[in-house]
Amino acid sequence: MTIDTDPGAGTDADAATALARCAALAALSSRPDAIERVHLTPEHARANALVGTWMEQAGLRAWQDAAGNQCGRREGVAPGLPALLLGSHLDTVPDAGRYDGPLGVVMALAVAERLRGRDLPFALEVVGFGDEEGARFGAALLGSRALAGTWDEAWWGLTDRDGTTLREAFVDFGLDPARVGEAARRPEELVGYLEAHIEQGPHLEAADASLGYVTTIAGARRFVLSVHGEARHAGGTPYSRRRDALVGASEVVTAVERLARATGDHGCIATVGRIEVAPGAVNVVPGRADLTLDLRAATDAERDAMWETMRAEAAALCAARGLGLEVVETHSAPAVPCAPWLQQAVVAGIATTGDAEPRGLWSRAGHDAMAVAAVADVAMLFLRCSDGISHHPDEDVREVDVARGIDALEAAVLAVAAVVAGRGAA
Amino acid sequence: MTIDTDPGAGTDADAATALARCAALAALSSRPDAIERVHLTPEHARANALVGTWMEQAGLRAWQDAAGNQCGRREGVAPGLPALLLGSHLDTVPDAGRYDGPLGVVMALAVAERLRGRDLPFALEVVGFGDEEGARFGAALLGSRALAGTWDEAWWGLTDRDGTTLREAFVDFGLDPARVGEAARRPEELVGYLEAHIEQGPHLEAADASLGYVTTIAGARRFVLSVHGEARHAGGTPYSRRRDALVGASEVVTAVERLARATGDHGCIATVGRIEVAPGAVNVVPGRADLTLDLRAATDAERDAMWETMRAEAAALCAARGLGLEVVETHSAPAVPCAPWLQQAVVAGIATTGDAEPRGLWSRAGHDAMAVAAVADVAMLFLRCSDGISHHPDEDVREVDVARGIDALEAAVLAVAAVVAGRGAA
Repeated sequence: MTIDTDPGAGTDADAATALARCAALAALSSRPDAIERVHLTPEHARANALVGTWMEQAGLRAWQDAAGNQCGRREGVAPGLPALLLGSHLDTVPDAGRYDGPLGVVMALAVAERLRGRDLPFALEVVGFGDEEGARFGAALLGSRALAGTWDEAWWGLTDRDGTTLREAFVDFGLDPARVGEAARRPEELVGYLEAHIEQGPHLEAADASLGYVTTIAGARRFVLSVHGEARHAGGTPYSRRRDALVGASEVVTAVERLARATGDHGCIATVGRIEVAPGAVNVVPGRADLTLDLRAATDAERDAMWETMRAEAAALCAARGLGLEVVETHSAPAVPCAPWLQQAVVAGIATTGDAEPRGLWSRAGHDAMAVAAVADVAMLFLRCSDGISHHPDEDVREVDVARGIDALEAAVLAVAAVVAGRGAA
Repeated sequence: MTIDTDPGAGTDADAATALARCAALAALSSRPDAIERVHLTPEHARANALVGTWMEQAGLRAWQDAAGNQCGRREGVAPGLPALLLGSHLDTVPDAGRYDGPLGVVMALAVAERLRGRDLPFALEVVGFGDEEGARFGAALLGSRALAGTWDEAWWGLTDRDGTTLREAFVDFGLDPARVGEAARRPEELVGYLEAHIEQGPHLEAADASLGYVTTIAGARRFVLSVHGEARHAGGTPYSRRRDALVGASEVVTAVERLARATGDHGCIATVGRIEVAPGAVNVVPGRADLTLDLRAATDAERDAMWETMRAEAAALCAARGLGLEVVETHSAPAVPCAPWLQQAVVAGIATTGDAEPRGLWSRAGHDAMAVAAVADVAMLFLRCSDGISHHPDEDVREVDVARGIDALEAAVLAVAAVVAGRGAA
């Protein structure tokens, strides 16, 4: 068997096709004026069907798995070999951009198309996960967790905003909840997982680089901080008698930013994305304020130390105002390191595009790769995006970066093939 | 005609009756576990009926007016004389205390009972307004505005949280919307309006005084401040790229408190009672934050100067973060001064209870008297309340203060009678 590490030609046309496919997927939306394609909806089914036709055009056998993920596979030099998975997710946040998720799927398809007819020492699979964002049922990564075999039976009772349970949504989608386990892969069936994704941050753009490789995918910790004061009449209660939960919470919000910001551009990142006050009347001093905190860092140790600092600061601010503070941790995920050998394959892939010193980044955002890491080594290729914008209609990528990204991903697959072939020879 | 300024005896029993009546009204609630009696509801009808029986017991002719206010009247020395109105409101906020409103009605009833058989140079009326809080339809003072003849036809389309319009609620209550004008009084029909009310603040308690008189009822200005930033991915967007609307809004919230607090205990009072952020997701930097501001001061000039300071500070804070700021004024009411001659009657009334130097206060809260002032001179008697608490189940008054309050209100009515009799003699 010959392993060719030359990534081949024709990149511009492939990038144009990839971008056109992102546009075609963007049209499969629940809203005429915006992109919104959440889990197990009619537009999800249409996206799977469309991606299925592209898979077949690329010479892959296409199917929808038992969890609603769209899969395509081509066997390697022998049938039944473990698979190298390429992919990303097909779902979006509400009012999304075109590229977060779909770009990684269509780039994987371009690579599968290019490698058609080439003998590989593994099966090649492309997967479009049905849920990464968690926009419909709150819990994220439902598609990739099903594939990783880490499905939680408790999720069946999760409801969307209309009260539909995940179980009902499965049935409505034509899936059998009892068979979700059939979507799970075993470690011995997998060589690894490579995911291309827009950076969702400004670091590559700032470094004037098209591509980067991911070292670690940070795990967020999320909390709800509840500040307890006393609801009182807004007119009649002088400041000396107030225990205003919102003023205390506002001090916490500004402290959270100050503390995280002080760790620098590659340090911690903390966000209060939601705040609610009760009773919430124009003429009543707020008696309670609940705010969410999302906290990330390159390492779990940095993140956890920052949380202790923030918790102490919030407690001190509340105590100074006679306010109570209650903290509930709602989510905690450990950082997931990318496998060094797969990182190296991505680095080699980027190098073929003319970037001799690819940038390594830690991913501030979560990705399907975090879930897949439970059953396979993972690595990620990041593409520069415009102004770091994501989860927004203004999300944008340059065609030249997509062209380089397809080249790099193809070369990374071939680099993996070389390693796997080498293992077989050893 | 003999005018007797001796307030009479039997105060303790009258205070006990007044408190028992507040307890009886508290039981007329839409909720078994809390006090909630809003405009034009079955419990409002039951409260009117109960107060109607008390009016008749006090020798008043009782009726429900065309706006749902419960009224009672006894003629003076001659039939058809202008009336001195005593009263307050019978509606409550959700999860209310027992005294905000009802106490003023039952104290007026006690005074009417005591003055039974006494010839007065005016008709004596007691009124229990159907809506002061505005808890059901958003607009406040609907009852007293109907009586003042300042009804706004635009209110008919106001809806409650179930979508019922004010017009529908009138019909459901057995009222004819077309006849609401019949509730209006003309200035020549009225001598004035005296209202007893709990202070809803801590100043009398701090001064160790049972009673006080009101100099001015402050008019609030209310605003919605909208802070415009940019919704971005919480993980991927470093601080240098963020325009976080909530962090900016939090700085505004703390600045509002700092600026108002600096004016001292008798200065301005400002409250941010509500805040909402969009998109409001745990993992998205807030792109927009809307907050309400309620601003009050003893004089409109102080209040308006404070608003200019706050607006400038908010604009500077937002500009420093690259945030936009949009301001909409949602409410503005001028301060309503109490008529000096009626204030003097209240002062004289309080003096009969042994307080030789009654405290004059500006009312931070709005009251029915503000609306009635459109057709009659008004004045108010404030009662000490526990810890300044109001709009809360813990609202409390001392029986001794209610006893003194009834004495003072009775004496104030007699002082008014002396003035009116003097006018007639002049």
